[in-house]
Amino acid sequence: MGNLLIVGTMAFDAIETPFGKTGRILGGAGTFIGLAASQFNVKSAIVSVVGDDFPQSYMDILLNKNIDLSGVEVVKGGKTFFWEGKYHNDLNSRDTLATELNTLADFNPVVPADFTNAEIVMLGNLHPNIQLSVINQMETRPKLIILDTMNFWMDHTWDELMNVISKIDVLTINDEEARQMTNEYSLVKAAAKIQKMGPRYVVIKKGEHGALLFHRENIFFAPALPLEEVFDPTGAGDTFAGGFAGYLAEAGYVSFESMKNAIIHGSNLASFCVERFGTERMVDLQKDEVEARLEQFKELTQFNIELT
Amino acid sequence: MGNLLIVGTMAFDAIETPFGKTGRILGGAGTFIGLAASQFNVKSAIVSVVGDDFPQSYMDILLNKNIDLSGVEVVKGGKTFFWEGKYHNDLNSRDTLATELNTLADFNPVVPADFTNAEIVMLGNLHPNIQLSVINQMETRPKLIILDTMNFWMDHTWDELMNVISKIDVLTINDEEARQMTNEYSLVKAAAKIQKMGPRYVVIKKGEHGALLFHRENIFFAPALPLEEVFDPTGAGDTFAGGFAGYLAEAGYVSFESMKNAIIHGSNLASFCVERFGTERMVDLQKDEVEARLEQFKELTQFNIELT
Repeated sequence: MGNLLIVGTMAFDAIETPFGKTGRILGGAGTFIGLAASQFNVKSAIVSVVGDDFPQSYMDILLNKNIDLSGVEVVKGGKTFFWEGKYHNDLNSRDTLATELNTLADFNPVVPADFTNAEIVMLGNLHPNIQLSVINQMETRPKLIILDTMNFWMDHTWDELMNVISKIDVLTINDEEARQMTNEYSLVKAAAKIQKMGPRYVVIKKGEHGALLFHRENIFFAPALPLEEVFDPTGAGDTFAGGFAGYLAEAGYVSFESMKNAIIHGSNLASFCVERFGTERMVDLQKDEVEARLEQFKELTQFNIELT
Repeated sequence: MGNLLIVGTMAFDAIETPFGKTGRILGGAGTFIGLAASQFNVKSAIVSVVGDDFPQSYMDILLNKNIDLSGVEVVKGGKTFFWEGKYHNDLNSRDTLATELNTLADFNPVVPADFTNAEIVMLGNLHPNIQLSVINQMETRPKLIILDTMNFWMDHTWDELMNVISKIDVLTINDEEARQMTNEYSLVKAAAKIQKMGPRYVVIKKGEHGALLFHRENIFFAPALPLEEVFDPTGAGDTFAGGFAGYLAEAGYVSFESMKNAIIHGSNLASFCVERFGTERMVDLQKDEVEARLEQFKELTQFNIELT
């Protein structure tokens, strides 16, 4: 069993999709990553910050998945990070209606002592200096540091982002952001440029169009499972990252072949995430459902052409 | 060796992409389908119409691939169908600058006697009544009738389109058109609705995002090969269809499994088509290049997760 250190937000989300509207529900990158990783035989911890308005019942959801929350700071009198968004009809784009950083504004991550030797570190989308601070707290160099980021940090903290990116192994990023980061439209060229910035592996997330893994000359592609209905895409990217990191932590070795499987497991879990609002589907997700859908992924992608 | 009957335009194209501009070059759906299908061990014929301005050298390109052109009518004093288009910088969208139907306006297809028993019929994008006329000329019901169409025929000849679609086995269509045809955003739902219109198989082409094959509850997906540069997308969809039809004609049997391979072969050939202007890359394409890239498709998509 490998150790997986997760750093990411724990949040309240309020979500509107064409199918309905929620009140404040459990959200945040750290939450989704943790829930996805809990599908694997790993010992994981989340480092995050919340206010004392964050209900114990939400903590319990994660604790019940055997996720270590000793690295979650609860700020007395503070309020938890809040995000409100409304998806457009195609569910591929959304408007952010509110972002209240609250306690996240002064987040100073502290890695629990048990996890300063974690083999895999998954840095969710946060200020690059927060991500860097976590790397600097590691006693031994992890086998794999995975970092997720977004355009906001490219626009506002480019130098800090480049600094932390130079120290990691895997960058996960969406297609538009990969293009913005490199000024290359071709994702093949963009991934090559990003590898020169530091990470040996680049995962480009294309939402409903799947995900690409790049490493030197090697490329692997995993489609998103075609679904009758995407109900709420919130957390799909983080669920993908959590499945990716969780699988690698359980596998205990890193190679292009193991990463292929990791990408498939990530895509598989993300296909569940989008079926209900927020974390709803992930909380009760059963192993047999996960296995059955992996079989669907095989049927979706595996073929048999003999080459001479 | 199976017989493949191809019906589609033979044309002059004038193309502008961010990489350059052509004069009038060889184009047309029938041309691209024929060139792609010629990679397989099949006896194929193109039914089409051109003016006497269509040069013998263009005919020779197809004749050298052992494509039967006895069904290509040459209209004396007539001019060949002409299309001019300019691609935007991302190469995913284009403006049509000119469309001159010329001899295509009165196209009255005549299937050569040798091909009225063809096992596979590939009906390229044309007026649905022209497509229907070809079906009606077949002496025996082909094993498989594949039909390609586009939004123009939905907008202007809906009833005729629905009539011909009710008589075919495979519809190939792009994602936006599948949505328009069914009023369903979900491609899973759209494909289910299209199957109720007639075709047992639906292939939804997503351009750089690959292609989906639907048949009852079964779904298969083939990505487009990630390329450093897409030079000119003209003909990629027809090349895909030609590879799909050509493989099935050679294989001689139709099943979901053989269609999976057909989709991969189609995607593989389309990945070459876009590397040069027009038909340039397809004309000289060698078997060993095709095989090497099929190996790339395997590496791109095949993984090894053992399920219990």
